[in-house]
Amino acid sequence: MNNKLNYCVIMAGGIGNRFWPVSTMQQPKQFLDFFGIGKSLLQMTVDRFKGVIPTENILVVTNVLYRDVVMQQLPEFKSDQILLEPSRRNTAPCIAYAMTHIKRLAFSRMGRDENVRVVVAPSDHLILQEEKFHHVIEEGLDFVADHDSLLTVGIQPTRPEVEYGYIQMIMSDEKIKRVKTFTEKPSLDLAKVFMASGEFLWNSGMYMWNIHTILNELNRFMPDMMGLFAQSDKHMCTEGEEAYIQQIFPACPNISIDYGVMEKAQNVQVMLADFDWSDLGTWGAVYDASKKDEQGNVTLHGDATYSDSTGNIVCLRTGYTALIRGLSHYIVAQNDNVIMICPKWEEGVIDKEKASVKIKNKV
Amino acid sequence: MNNKLNYCVIMAGGIGNRFWPVSTMQQPKQFLDFFGIGKSLLQMTVDRFKGVIPTENILVVTNVLYRDVVMQQLPEFKSDQILLEPSRRNTAPCIAYAMTHIKRLAFSRMGRDENVRVVVAPSDHLILQEEKFHHVIEEGLDFVADHDSLLTVGIQPTRPEVEYGYIQMIMSDEKIKRVKTFTEKPSLDLAKVFMASGEFLWNSGMYMWNIHTILNELNRFMPDMMGLFAQSDKHMCTEGEEAYIQQIFPACPNISIDYGVMEKAQNVQVMLADFDWSDLGTWGAVYDASKKDEQGNVTLHGDATYSDSTGNIVCLRTGYTALIRGLSHYIVAQNDNVIMICPKWEEGVIDKEKASVKIKNKV
Repeated sequence: MNNKLNYCVIMAGGIGNRFWPVSTMQQPKQFLDFFGIGKSLLQMTVDRFKGVIPTENILVVTNVLYRDVVMQQLPEFKSDQILLEPSRRNTAPCIAYAMTHIKRLAFSRMGRDENVRVVVAPSDHLILQEEKFHHVIEEGLDFVADHDSLLTVGIQPTRPEVEYGYIQMIMSDEKIKRVKTFTEKPSLDLAKVFMASGEFLWNSGMYMWNIHTILNELNRFMPDMMGLFAQSDKHMCTEGEEAYIQQIFPACPNISIDYGVMEKAQNVQVMLADFDWSDLGTWGAVYDASKKDEQGNVTLHGDATYSDSTGNIVCLRTGYTALIRGLSHYIVAQNDNVIMICPKWEEGVIDKEKASVKIKNKV
Repeated sequence: MNNKLNYCVIMAGGIGNRFWPVSTMQQPKQFLDFFGIGKSLLQMTVDRFKGVIPTENILVVTNVLYRDVVMQQLPEFKSDQILLEPSRRNTAPCIAYAMTHIKRLAFSRMGRDENVRVVVAPSDHLILQEEKFHHVIEEGLDFVADHDSLLTVGIQPTRPEVEYGYIQMIMSDEKIKRVKTFTEKPSLDLAKVFMASGEFLWNSGMYMWNIHTILNELNRFMPDMMGLFAQSDKHMCTEGEEAYIQQIFPACPNISIDYGVMEKAQNVQVMLADFDWSDLGTWGAVYDASKKDEQGNVTLHGDATYSDSTGNIVCLRTGYTALIRGLSHYIVAQNDNVIMICPKWEEGVIDKEKASVKIKNKV
């Protein structure tokens, strides 16, 4: 397809407080070559969309801190394909910025207001089965082209995961169903009920819509924030864009698009996707998504020799080697001068300790 | 006392295949600042003897590989206080070299054959309670001055340790007792019997004797080896010494002094020492000998933060930090690019795996 009316926004502004010590504020997860294949998660995400969106229509939104790393990782991108957030907000301001920018960009390219379609996606998820992915995106963008719909992408749950968000469908015979509720990180009991019901899908964090629909809904549910963007037609895609954003962005609320719009809007729908997906939100999720050796260990980076050990995930800096014996189901992760050793099932409980340890990071 | 007839030989030629990856052939254990106090074990050993032996009478025997590191660690030593072994043998050739050297050295200093007394000691043991140590050495050297005795130093066992050598005493009312047997590394059952009997002491690896006694016994039990040293009076303490040793040393047998002499001689005695002692032969022994934090962990080098963890020993390079959670009774040891994680009770079983891992050592 590669329709020139199709745009893609990749959100790459996260500062990565998970995956410590490998992921840090200097080098968040989306910029890491997590699987040692020579591409960062961001680069993998961009490549994945290139099969279905014209490259010049792919935009990356990131924090101004990461301007250089993005330009370095995406040398084929022109600098105006990188939108910079001057301060850390959540997804609603990010999307408001990207949508007002795209509206103006499409106008300047086509000479008139076009009903362009946009897919918005995180930069740090793992998606396998790329053909199926392309098919889902094409089908979704086709759908939103002539439907006034905020379309989400749901994944069939394979386990009662408590770290994911869930989308409840209003059951029907339609392929694309209406959404009843969103639920973030349920308890284990609730997650089991969700799975058993058959009405719940994992929320992939991807959205598709046409530009008019999303701007209407943003104006309806977040009028104060959208008021800040009132002059956007004048400034977007000009030399004044960065200064304009620097001025208005800090005033935006720290609110997610789910909370600000999706949970309130009436025209939210979900398409069931059939590709393999992981949000890579925890070391455990990366372990699950990675190829294991014969003993069931995963060595993401660096080298490791295991004996009498299984279920570990090891991520060291290039050139480092771990010799691991009698250790099972642990994370061994290094960044420069810091080495973390922690059971996989406890990575969520070490936040306080993390704060006490300083990484001498070479940016 | 500091009697000028008293000499000390510190054996520092070991190549350190334990304590991997921290101790390596490039940097064996005796040259490491094991306890982070700013002194290597060798430096601690030399300092300990300075209280009881004139500094100029202290000699270090080491492998030629370690000439530079010894000179660097002992800047107060003249180069002729460092005896170099051109190839790796065991303690019998080391002692034969040192004794023939000292005989000649004392002659050249005193102008006649003197009955000097020598204490021979390992360079990599830990000894606490230095006053008691000084007293033991003084008493032992006094004793061997006028006894034809090969005097060993025994430590009262506090546990049935299977990694140590044991000395069986012939029980008597004398303070210095005759030795009945030597036993290396008994089984646990045997070690328990040893302890219960009250007749067994740990072998500290230190010897005291006068120069005539040891040379007589070496000549009696190792005549072939001593034949190689027949011209030593001519070459020792001359510019030709190094070339002479280079020529004869490789022909020496790879035999310990215990096996070559002590187990065969009739005049072997043992003095019970009352200072705290550890051969630091394993990470576990170093753990036992080290100060624990409140949670029972030992951080030898580098930093570590522990939670829900106890009984660990951590040794990282300077500037490195470990964040350890939910791990107990492990060794976490690093040298440059290699990190070992292994239960304390299993350090003996990883030899094969060690061989497969290469350390990029900065000498």
